[in-house]
Amino acid sequence: MKPRILEVRTKILKKNDEIARAMRARFGVSGVYVVNVVSSPGAGKTGLLTRVMTELSRDMTVVAVVGDLATEHDAARLAESGCEARQISTGTLCHLEADMVEKAIEGWSLDGIDVLFIENVGNLVCPQGFDLGEDLRLLLFPVTEGEDKPLKYPTLINTCDAVAISKMDLAVAVGFDLETAKANTEKARPGVAVFETSARTGAGVDELAAFLRERVAAKRAEPVDAVAP
Amino acid sequence: MKPRILEVRTKILKKNDEIARAMRARFGVSGVYVVNVVSSPGAGKTGLLTRVMTELSRDMTVVAVVGDLATEHDAARLAESGCEARQISTGTLCHLEADMVEKAIEGWSLDGIDVLFIENVGNLVCPQGFDLGEDLRLLLFPVTEGEDKPLKYPTLINTCDAVAISKMDLAVAVGFDLETAKANTEKARPGVAVFETSARTGAGVDELAAFLRERVAAKRAEPVDAVAP
Repeated sequence: MKPRILEVRTKILKKNDEIARAMRARFGVSGVYVVNVVSSPGAGKTGLLTRVMTELSRDMTVVAVVGDLATEHDAARLAESGCEARQISTGTLCHLEADMVEKAIEGWSLDGIDVLFIENVGNLVCPQGFDLGEDLRLLLFPVTEGEDKPLKYPTLINTCDAVAISKMDLAVAVGFDLETAKANTEKARPGVAVFETSARTGAGVDELAAFLRERVAAKRAEPVDAVAP
Repeated sequence: MKPRILEVRTKILKKNDEIARAMRARFGVSGVYVVNVVSSPGAGKTGLLTRVMTELSRDMTVVAVVGDLATEHDAARLAESGCEARQISTGTLCHLEADMVEKAIEGWSLDGIDVLFIENVGNLVCPQGFDLGEDLRLLLFPVTEGEDKPLKYPTLINTCDAVAISKMDLAVAVGFDLETAKANTEKARPGVAVFETSARTGAGVDELAAFLRERVAAKRAEPVDAVAP
């Protein structure tokens, strides 16, 4: 990479980090727990999130923003959870950046929100460097992509805090080797929490929701100063 | 996008285009037909390509290069076709660029090659702007990603010459609506050739191979000047 190009990339990332840091401080003051959900296209982010949002919203206020290059399909699907959801159209951009999220949440009263899900653009590489002010980065690996993805696409897994293996209902049909997938995940990101989920059957949704509830409670127990910049 | 960033991006693309144009001229002189295969991660590019390469190599010399961020798994899998395959490791880069392909094919005698497959990094957005000197851009959509991908990820489909719907053997298991998928594909890219394929069962492999044979023959029938820069 040439020095000048590197410089421009560094500048974009620096600007993004500044906005993300400011958002993280706002989320901290208002007690909003933020989850950035990343995966390849068609990994089942929207389906799983709709399930998890339905479960969490029984006793919490949950909202979502979702990024796609085009269409508003996913915001409409997420809204089936009964929670408010807003679409971000990225045009040709292959990932979400912090200023897009900042703009998308305008008008929402953060004090009244417990959990904000940010469903990123389907892309297993590019969202890696873009902090969105999240507390947790959740990576989905569908069984249909094969067991080797944690090794072949290391960038996102190296920065995620939890992994949901998705579409587990198709594991037998595709001959998915769960133990190999888990071993590859552990190799790429030692100690990361792994959930075996299916949006179709609901498998793993309660476990993932319980994990998030614990994280939300833990954040609330922290002094606000600890999350301010 | 700020003018300076735009300028740098334009410069990267311009340099890529120059290398791609020079490669296209070399491929034209040597009579190499080049296919750039693009899709999301885990869409089944390697599995389908291995099948198509096995079929085409019965009476043609076929080679492949394949891009991944890490590992050499895919080159090893493609070599199961009996054809030579080379791995390109992109590090953190989310797509192949022309100079990477130029370097990867060094040492091969192009005059002895009929077809070169370039399996791109799994990414449904970023490979769009990077010409690799190909004659044909083949896009894979697996049934597991859902019928809406041609509408939600318009960039690559807008530049592809053929679409292979992959993993058709899973269509029933995932409740895939083929007619909707084809209608969305036609809406995004009117008139594009669509193949219904499965690397597992071999469905559609003969049809796709026959289509490529026709294209190879058509390129050979062209005067070389027509493909020079």
